[in-house]
Amino acid sequence: MKPSIPKGTRDFSPVEVARRTYIFDTIKRVFQKFGYQPIETPVMENLSTLTGKYGEEGDQLIFKVLNSGDFLSKADAQKLEAKNSKAVTFEISEKALRYDLTVPFARYVVMHQNEIAMPFKRYQVQPVWRADRPQKGRYREFYQCDADVVGSDSLLNEAEFVCIYDEALSNLGLNDFTIKINNRKILSGIADIIGKSELIVDMTVAIDKLDKIGYDGVVKELIERGFTEKDIEVLRPFIELSGSNDEKLQVLKTSLSSTEIGKKGIEELETIFSYLSAFELKRAKVELDITLARGLNYYTGAIFEVKSNEVQMGSIGGGGRYDDLTGMFGLKGVTGAGISFGADRIYDVMLELGLFPESAVNSTKVLITNFDTTAEKFALPVLAKLRAKGINTELYPASSKLQKQMKYADAKQIPFVILIGEEEMQSGLLALKNMQSGEQEKLSLENILEKLA
Amino acid sequence: MKPSIPKGTRDFSPVEVARRTYIFDTIKRVFQKFGYQPIETPVMENLSTLTGKYGEEGDQLIFKVLNSGDFLSKADAQKLEAKNSKAVTFEISEKALRYDLTVPFARYVVMHQNEIAMPFKRYQVQPVWRADRPQKGRYREFYQCDADVVGSDSLLNEAEFVCIYDEALSNLGLNDFTIKINNRKILSGIADIIGKSELIVDMTVAIDKLDKIGYDGVVKELIERGFTEKDIEVLRPFIELSGSNDEKLQVLKTSLSSTEIGKKGIEELETIFSYLSAFELKRAKVELDITLARGLNYYTGAIFEVKSNEVQMGSIGGGGRYDDLTGMFGLKGVTGAGISFGADRIYDVMLELGLFPESAVNSTKVLITNFDTTAEKFALPVLAKLRAKGINTELYPASSKLQKQMKYADAKQIPFVILIGEEEMQSGLLALKNMQSGEQEKLSLENILEKLA
Repeated sequence: MKPSIPKGTRDFSPVEVARRTYIFDTIKRVFQKFGYQPIETPVMENLSTLTGKYGEEGDQLIFKVLNSGDFLSKADAQKLEAKNSKAVTFEISEKALRYDLTVPFARYVVMHQNEIAMPFKRYQVQPVWRADRPQKGRYREFYQCDADVVGSDSLLNEAEFVCIYDEALSNLGLNDFTIKINNRKILSGIADIIGKSELIVDMTVAIDKLDKIGYDGVVKELIERGFTEKDIEVLRPFIELSGSNDEKLQVLKTSLSSTEIGKKGIEELETIFSYLSAFELKRAKVELDITLARGLNYYTGAIFEVKSNEVQMGSIGGGGRYDDLTGMFGLKGVTGAGISFGADRIYDVMLELGLFPESAVNSTKVLITNFDTTAEKFALPVLAKLRAKGINTELYPASSKLQKQMKYADAKQIPFVILIGEEEMQSGLLALKNMQSGEQEKLSLENILEKLA
Repeated sequence: MKPSIPKGTRDFSPVEVARRTYIFDTIKRVFQKFGYQPIETPVMENLSTLTGKYGEEGDQLIFKVLNSGDFLSKADAQKLEAKNSKAVTFEISEKALRYDLTVPFARYVVMHQNEIAMPFKRYQVQPVWRADRPQKGRYREFYQCDADVVGSDSLLNEAEFVCIYDEALSNLGLNDFTIKINNRKILSGIADIIGKSELIVDMTVAIDKLDKIGYDGVVKELIERGFTEKDIEVLRPFIELSGSNDEKLQVLKTSLSSTEIGKKGIEELETIFSYLSAFELKRAKVELDITLARGLNYYTGAIFEVKSNEVQMGSIGGGGRYDDLTGMFGLKGVTGAGISFGADRIYDVMLELGLFPESAVNSTKVLITNFDTTAEKFALPVLAKLRAKGINTELYPASSKLQKQMKYADAKQIPFVILIGEEEMQSGLLALKNMQSGEQEKLSLENILEKLA
């Protein structure tokens, strides 16, 4: 009888909701500033919309919704008898919980293509569900916070994504974070040169360890992962790539001069950096990192990843350019790019660094005590006037012991208490107690309104 | 291959999201002003948490989530063979989509009782799911917008609910709406007198038709519904109840003087009206309506319903007092009261009355045209400065034909366009076009910033 919630899901308390709202509102405000507009899609999508979009493993992690009513009537008796769960799934389930915001967005673009002005810049902040094994920091229900643009191949979009990360995270109070940027075409160029495109992830994983295991360690790992001595000779400039973004680009230009796609990748990066030089970033560092290899099975151009340098934590954001987002739904030739904020991790970073402003919790500002019916009656117009000034105010709804009422104010972190007793009613001067300092003063209602408004 | 969404669900476009956000934010702001704080609960609850809480019909309308993995392995072979959907449901599904916000709230209160300060005033604005037959205005996925207080039996809460409806709906621009109020105890009192508590709904339904079918019509209907001539003699003052709230209360006092519960109901109403006399309502009419009979199977005290008088539409809000909300989860003696806003209907009312302010759509305010790479380069710092002033601005991301760029501004309802051509770059005076008036003027960037900030 003791109630619980499904594993991997969470209740959010008032303080948590307020903090999460603060994060989402800050990010949304920046999205809007850059011309992105919100859409919302249903939690339930047709199962056929989602199936096959996330690979075989992904398909299994999709939460399916049981058909309503007599769902077994249409199911194949043989499959049931064989207890063939996989085959039966599609006979008893036609709907599923969305797994990410990207596929529903693609579906939205195709369904609403005649109402949409291209380029279409949309943001979407909604929960998604994955039947992953829950573990610390990984939930089965969690929010994604995405901005995507489709119908524009301009690299201005990529540059603006860097600005969006910079402004949103700076506004949230993060002081030191790095936006890593790479381009899929550069990785393709390298693969071109050594002719081993199938090992591209192994290569980036190995190169990424340079700081930890040194050049010889990287070479050893590359050989273990199937590269030859000759490959490594070619890879050497990429392994040793260092310096400023400009310096890295110069090395890449030389090393990739023989590959068209590699040169295209460099050109794209240069264009993005050129756009960025016209914008002033607030606090972000931008770093060209050719070992950044996220989403290689769908990103076709720029790749982004954002990390906090103040807190040990996985990436707090990521994204990139993808061609043909909507092809899966029959609409060809729609290029796009998008980024995502990792709200849960940003929350943890901000909590660890103490970055949530007190004002992020929109709690009650004033509690009026309630000693008896006479005092309550006296308090009603006081209550009304405080609220009329826009001040969040409560009158304690029972004439309980003062201690209990103060405890309530404490628990709710209410910063001010107005005490109304015999004396206050006679003099018209109300006792205003500052709950943090403990200080108490007698003020007219007008003065209180002035002080708290 | 043409994508679609499940019936009864909806996509929300940028304009729709902005308008819905405007409604929710306005209501939330008022909730906060009255000391209510937000919580959020998971979309998926344990099926056992929801089952049995909404009656047999309700149970069937709950969307169940299929267990992950090999869900049939644990299912009873005989039940499968018999295609007994109902029995199999609980063997292949342990989770479900929440059906309302009230049961999850009760579950939350019980689970978190040690962290919660009582009285606990919470609001919750989240979607719920019901496998109802979709029809006009009825969806399978829709938002509920609830405020509830538990742990306080003070009628101040009821009075404040009236204020919350008044302030929220007035702030949304509704001019003429009525908050109907009744008390379950009055209906119980009437039932006491005539000794037919099982016919209480029939009675209220019949009495409610007085305006339409007249006294004789009501009498006829009452007899059809099982009342005797003698019952009707007793019911006469209730059928003919009219006048101001005070006048109605006087009649009720006389007519219900012999029933304790009826007298208690009157006393409660009087207390609520007495509280309300200390508050100034903005635009709401408050009407005592003893035919209001919503939620009689759970409300135990006050009952509320809100209707627009400007638009023909079902109720746009409702609520009441319930005893023992959390008893279903083993926590006894927690009284509560709550109200709900019907966001979808409020949306329709506001749309029909044209009440959405243009500012509710947080679209881009300025589009900068893009004629060629030189103009684009010139535009970048302009773009950055506008955004730095907090102005939502876009630079068109390609040097398309002007017509196409203007069409984009039109489609997105962008009110201002800055045109940057040869002449503008030379003079430094930019052409600012007001898209509504068509008026165009040449201004320095500083003047534009002043004008639009």
